[in-house]
Amino acid sequence: MSGQLAVVGLGPGDRRWLTPEADTALAGAEALYGYGAYLDRVPMRPGQARHASDNREEGARAAAALRHAAQGAHVALVSGGDPGVFAMAAAVCAEIESGPDAWRNLDVSVIPGITAMLAVAARVGAPLGHDFCALSLSDNLKPWDLIERRLVAAAQAGFVIALYNPVSQARRWQLGAAFDQLRRLLPAATPVVFGRAVGRGDEEVHVTTLDIADPARADMATLLIIGSAETRLITRPGRSPLVYTPRSAETVRA
Amino acid sequence: MSGQLAVVGLGPGDRRWLTPEADTALAGAEALYGYGAYLDRVPMRPGQARHASDNREEGARAAAALRHAAQGAHVALVSGGDPGVFAMAAAVCAEIESGPDAWRNLDVSVIPGITAMLAVAARVGAPLGHDFCALSLSDNLKPWDLIERRLVAAAQAGFVIALYNPVSQARRWQLGAAFDQLRRLLPAATPVVFGRAVGRGDEEVHVTTLDIADPARADMATLLIIGSAETRLITRPGRSPLVYTPRSAETVRA
Repeated sequence: MSGQLAVVGLGPGDRRWLTPEADTALAGAEALYGYGAYLDRVPMRPGQARHASDNREEGARAAAALRHAAQGAHVALVSGGDPGVFAMAAAVCAEIESGPDAWRNLDVSVIPGITAMLAVAARVGAPLGHDFCALSLSDNLKPWDLIERRLVAAAQAGFVIALYNPVSQARRWQLGAAFDQLRRLLPAATPVVFGRAVGRGDEEVHVTTLDIADPARADMATLLIIGSAETRLITRPGRSPLVYTPRSAETVRA
Repeated sequence: MSGQLAVVGLGPGDRRWLTPEADTALAGAEALYGYGAYLDRVPMRPGQARHASDNREEGARAAAALRHAAQGAHVALVSGGDPGVFAMAAAVCAEIESGPDAWRNLDVSVIPGITAMLAVAARVGAPLGHDFCALSLSDNLKPWDLIERRLVAAAQAGFVIALYNPVSQARRWQLGAAFDQLRRLLPAATPVVFGRAVGRGDEEVHVTTLDIADPARADMATLLIIGSAETRLITRPGRSPLVYTPRSAETVRA
């Protein structure tokens, strides 16, 4: 029997966002690998081995899953959200590229999931309704310089910005610095959405504007969406506001 | 009884990508609105009215669904992929903003789906594994000038580019012009992925490089992913190549 590795996107916390394809892949696996908090979201099934690892050991986790699959097993490596967006699929590809030749012969599949920015956007309307970018604010794997240049380029060109990994235990000042940069380029009233733990019991969604957005509101479970100059906020009596970016852009602002 | 409007993402063609949340919303609706080809993907249920409309009538379709919900009905408006990405959720918000006050009191929800770029990326590895942008190449709703500036800004800043709406019956030269621009900024060997009808029976995924990418390969059902200078291609004997963008960027290229 030849091995298989499925890199499976669980979506954000809510099980109603787990696709049937992902569910089938999880049910058919002999062994599951993943960050402990994600594995905890997968129902226990008899005869299925579980290998939980720490959040930061992505390369080692990918390699362990590949080694296991190369022995002939059906292995699922779970990822929160979508495995292709700042997650495990790239780590698996990197290990295949640098690993033994046999890994290039493995049956590797990636099973997409709802990524956090889509879930956060859905909660408030359609802030990603026009051109947008997704940017990780973590300077663990790239220089801060580059992150700032990308923020500036995106804001100047009129992209809405979805910010992944805005803060961590060790990264405290970066989000404030990003807001400072963006305040120089975007209107004060630009909508900003803090989406925390969307789909989980402790979900919190907060809509504000760039001039008063408080970096202290973000934690490791937060995804931010920062509007472009076109993004609009619709107030609704007795309801939370809607945020959307129109599909049309009449003027060249870039 | 008060009305409800759910804007429901069906994901790309494959039913195994329809989330349980979307399935529940479709089952509970008294009336379905949508572009005909998307409505055809929703199973018929007794007592459920269907209102199909043409691809280009997004504003009118959104308004009709809102009017129906405002009469007290439970209405679902279906969208391919994710409703928040170049799709119906922004059209609904725009109609609410300009429509009667009563529409601001409606219970409107957006139900996220797998958007095309995630499905195409999953088929080839992890091309969106690092910072990326999503850009519609349609100049029906924004000037071509602005599209070109965004392409240049994205490529110069090192974003991978997911291109939605690369061509249509009436838009034939735009993708070629986009490739010409990008060839001036990115290495010849930059991976380019054409993902056509992903998840449907007639799916075709083609991986090539920027120097020889042929615009004629794209049609209205195609989504493209154009790598950054960091994006890598892994050849595999007897298997299709993997494409991925490493999570780390060591050097500032922007």
